[in-house]
Amino acid sequence: MAQSGNLFADIARVLEHEQFADLYAAPGIKIERIVSTGQATPPLQWLEQDWTEWVALLTGAAAIQLEGEPGPRTLEPGDWLLIPARKRHRVEWTDLSGATIWLAVHIGV
Amino acid sequence: MAQSGNLFADIARVLEHEQFADLYAAPGIKIERIVSTGQATPPLQWLEQDWTEWVALLTGAAAIQLEGEPGPRTLEPGDWLLIPARKRHRVEWTDLSGATIWLAVHIGV
Repeated sequence: MAQSGNLFADIARVLEHEQFADLYAAPGIKIERIVSTGQATPPLQWLEQDWTEWVALLTGAAAIQLEGEPGPRTLEPGDWLLIPARKRHRVEWTDLSGATIWLAVHIGV
Repeated sequence: MAQSGNLFADIARVLEHEQFADLYAAPGIKIERIVSTGQATPPLQWLEQDWTEWVALLTGAAAIQLEGEPGPRTLEPGDWLLIPARKRHRVEWTDLSGATIWLAVHIGV
């Protein structure tokens, strides 16, 4: 039986924390759904990882700051972004009014 | 400059053929957008590939038949499906009334 699911299903209406779900994982790759409901990277902190992340915003809205860029990039539905390994970045904000659904492909993880 | 784009942009209104765009490629992985506008796998033919494909339907509608399953699976927006390597499958139909946008992650390609 081939695995399947829906990217927009099983979203809690209010989430205290972000919701992470692995959709696929194999050596060197992980496909993950992330649901945010207003969470952001704490002030003065950066996210940094040893692998490449290709991430798309499917619903909602968010802004990501990449280190060295003049300001955050606002992301709307359909927007995708390649975050190179070891590129420091921050999620400045995510939509407070509903679910922001991300699809992240972690490469070389 | 980090690469970026939008999954819903640059869609031709009428396409004679499916439209393929590589969004990311590295050894062993390719992330691809596919836009279908009514295309299907020709009768009696199967698709078969040597790598795993994780595919999500983002807009539109389609049906995929996996060999050995009793009937095709109808896919709606958000539905994803893991097609194992060498699993024969067919796209039975895609929406004739507009664009069906797929996001495919080819793994081990």
